[in-house]
Amino acid sequence: MNMTPLARAAVPAFFALLALVASPLPADAGNTPPRNVIFMVGDGMSFAHVKAYRMYADDPSTDLVEPLPMEQYLVGAVSTDSIRLDCSSGDCVRLPHGFTDSASSATAYATGHDTIVGHLSVTGAGKPLKTILERAHERGKSTGLVATSEVTHATPAAFAGHITDRDQQGMIADQYVEALVLKDPVVDVLLGGGRKHLVRGENDLMAEFRGAGYEILQNRDELMVSQADRLLGVFAEQGLPRAWDRTPEIPSLADMTSVALRTLNRNERGFFLMVEGSQIDWAAHKHSVPGVVSEMEDFVGAIREVLEFAGQRDDTLVVITADHETGGMALGRDNIYYWDATPLRGMVHTPKHMTQQFLSTEEPLSSIVARNVPFKLTPVEVTELDATYDDDRSVRKTLAKLFNRRTFTAWSSNGHTGADVPLYVVGPGSEQFGGVMQNEDLGQALQEAFLP
Amino acid sequence: MNMTPLARAAVPAFFALLALVASPLPADAGNTPPRNVIFMVGDGMSFAHVKAYRMYADDPSTDLVEPLPMEQYLVGAVSTDSIRLDCSSGDCVRLPHGFTDSASSATAYATGHDTIVGHLSVTGAGKPLKTILERAHERGKSTGLVATSEVTHATPAAFAGHITDRDQQGMIADQYVEALVLKDPVVDVLLGGGRKHLVRGENDLMAEFRGAGYEILQNRDELMVSQADRLLGVFAEQGLPRAWDRTPEIPSLADMTSVALRTLNRNERGFFLMVEGSQIDWAAHKHSVPGVVSEMEDFVGAIREVLEFAGQRDDTLVVITADHETGGMALGRDNIYYWDATPLRGMVHTPKHMTQQFLSTEEPLSSIVARNVPFKLTPVEVTELDATYDDDRSVRKTLAKLFNRRTFTAWSSNGHTGADVPLYVVGPGSEQFGGVMQNEDLGQALQEAFLP
Repeated sequence: MNMTPLARAAVPAFFALLALVASPLPADAGNTPPRNVIFMVGDGMSFAHVKAYRMYADDPSTDLVEPLPMEQYLVGAVSTDSIRLDCSSGDCVRLPHGFTDSASSATAYATGHDTIVGHLSVTGAGKPLKTILERAHERGKSTGLVATSEVTHATPAAFAGHITDRDQQGMIADQYVEALVLKDPVVDVLLGGGRKHLVRGENDLMAEFRGAGYEILQNRDELMVSQADRLLGVFAEQGLPRAWDRTPEIPSLADMTSVALRTLNRNERGFFLMVEGSQIDWAAHKHSVPGVVSEMEDFVGAIREVLEFAGQRDDTLVVITADHETGGMALGRDNIYYWDATPLRGMVHTPKHMTQQFLSTEEPLSSIVARNVPFKLTPVEVTELDATYDDDRSVRKTLAKLFNRRTFTAWSSNGHTGADVPLYVVGPGSEQFGGVMQNEDLGQALQEAFLP
Repeated sequence: MNMTPLARAAVPAFFALLALVASPLPADAGNTPPRNVIFMVGDGMSFAHVKAYRMYADDPSTDLVEPLPMEQYLVGAVSTDSIRLDCSSGDCVRLPHGFTDSASSATAYATGHDTIVGHLSVTGAGKPLKTILERAHERGKSTGLVATSEVTHATPAAFAGHITDRDQQGMIADQYVEALVLKDPVVDVLLGGGRKHLVRGENDLMAEFRGAGYEILQNRDELMVSQADRLLGVFAEQGLPRAWDRTPEIPSLADMTSVALRTLNRNERGFFLMVEGSQIDWAAHKHSVPGVVSEMEDFVGAIREVLEFAGQRDDTLVVITADHETGGMALGRDNIYYWDATPLRGMVHTPKHMTQQFLSTEEPLSSIVARNVPFKLTPVEVTELDATYDDDRSVRKTLAKLFNRRTFTAWSSNGHTGADVPLYVVGPGSEQFGGVMQNEDLGQALQEAFLP
């Protein structure tokens, strides 16, 4: 029955009665918890980001805009409010509702508790909150964190770290190692970017992982043939390059996800896996439509792997959502009833990559862009591109403007907005999800479904 | 089972198997069609418009942002694409996907068929398409159309009219009367605005309705005590005033809905009722946050009436959605992780009403605004307001800017955008709805559930 605790608190009793009549589920549905839970987060991904990719991925030769693989499992939406606390006077004072960041939202999902923006699985006062990944580990299940950000970045870190400042990624890496030193490695599979936080001069934390029995993976080839039950794969100094900008030695999110599934699934007690498409958010902060589409493509590739895995068995609950909306993205602007994906189809690299090329060579920006896009630049566009100041911020802004104008995309903010985010759920226990859920209620529902 | 025809076309067979395992519904679920269907449209209402009203209606003394009455029934979303056709050369040529208007979207819902923007329940070539309301009437059910727009406006008109140009509201009124002349009144209850299209000089179509046995209602008092089985209530020359601007003789959408339900429910064979919150769209076209909240309040009031009616019985399917998104509305802008409803709470009138006051009196705009808002205007705001040109467009824009800045709202377009819209469903047959549905597939699902 699609009733959240939030909804239950607020509706008259006759609605409950009506829902009973309307949903003829057996009374014991959901009583056998799933063996495995796969929780997937598209960072910053709301309905507009999904639809942009749906229209980009569309087969233009058919009348149908083909749905994405997860879209038949849309069961509701998540409200990503967080309580704003003013703790300046020592005791925290409640302020009207604000919109969350990745840290407080991931905390809500990992622990079922609201916290302050920037905090990772600690209360407003800094007290650690046990996470669903830690609880799964206590029950003898395997665990994994896979992301295209640093493995110590907010979303993965909230599942295995506890800290009041998400930016202390070195300290989060130290917390991962602490678990090894205590002979209790909490995360069995850790894949993503962020080498700089693990190898800091003399201090090579990778060695600690190797000593604790982890196979250390440096590139895609090593990843794909990995054999061990514990894996640490870190494939870039910071976040991975955008999907369209990767060299063959960098794995895709789908590559990392399929290896994680194969590895974790060896444990007969099952597993908890969190997979994040981390950089949908990063591209949206920069108002980059090609970046959003590039990262959505990467995330949907991982979703395909997960649905294929889960579709071959009946013991795996898949929950796919986002942590918040980024950018106030709108498809359609200036009174034009249309959004155009064609300028993006056949693009070679993202604006981020073109910017790096421009800043490191003498080639004019218009020439770099012309090599990377499927359309012919107008004389006005060439003039605009070549009039750009040669600093990262200016070039990114100029390129964003080009693609936003060509596709009819608009943005309201460089930060996060209050848009509800989509909730896709399939598998045993899925009947406990639906309607409009608060993010912390989704975290509680996850724990109740998986580890009752 | 939450599978749309759209989804079925695109997913491998093992997903269907998985869905069977995951959804332990009895095999014959949905085989008894509902006696009644109530279809509700929030014109232009997407997730942001709903959330704006949720935050406005929030009880600030609790930690919870209270959900709206329909939110526990969110089961998916609707994609409001329409096929863009270029018919300039006689034969229509298919262009890439565009976003619909109220006419083509209402046609999709009323008939299950895609059509061209501006068309009402006719094919691209102008051939009439039978509507769900007409089919219900053929089966001996009662029918009703309730809206805060003119009763001849696009959304209601698509259920009982057939025309290639939605703007010909007089011709749509003539079509309603034609049914009376043929002794086959298709719409039993018709409530809303638009007197000017029914009373045109000597030509008083109301008299035709009276002659056909309809009770004619001119104000709220007459509406609330109406007794007849056929009602024509037209309460304004054009659309009704915004909810916050109505005088006591103008009914609310909830008033009209409750009378429609009471009247239609007398038919033992059941009924089809369409209820539209028409002016959410109109306010969003003007980027008016107070207007959106005013009209959402009115629409949610009608939703409460409908859910209370349906909650007391087990034979009524309720489907609530929108026809498209209007405005590219975003809650949060300028990198502020917050949206503020407090400037709207306690407002007396909408900007539309304040504009009319300003244009018809000598009172300074700042003084009119100060009397209507709960906050104290800053000196800069007073200066801006009083520097506005005294034409409707300039005043509306100045007022929109004030409330958008105060609430942190942004807009991308004066028109419609591609955002998917929410889909709330409850009652017998509800298991046939869910996931991401195309608007014409939702129309087909409605007919299949109601009139198999």
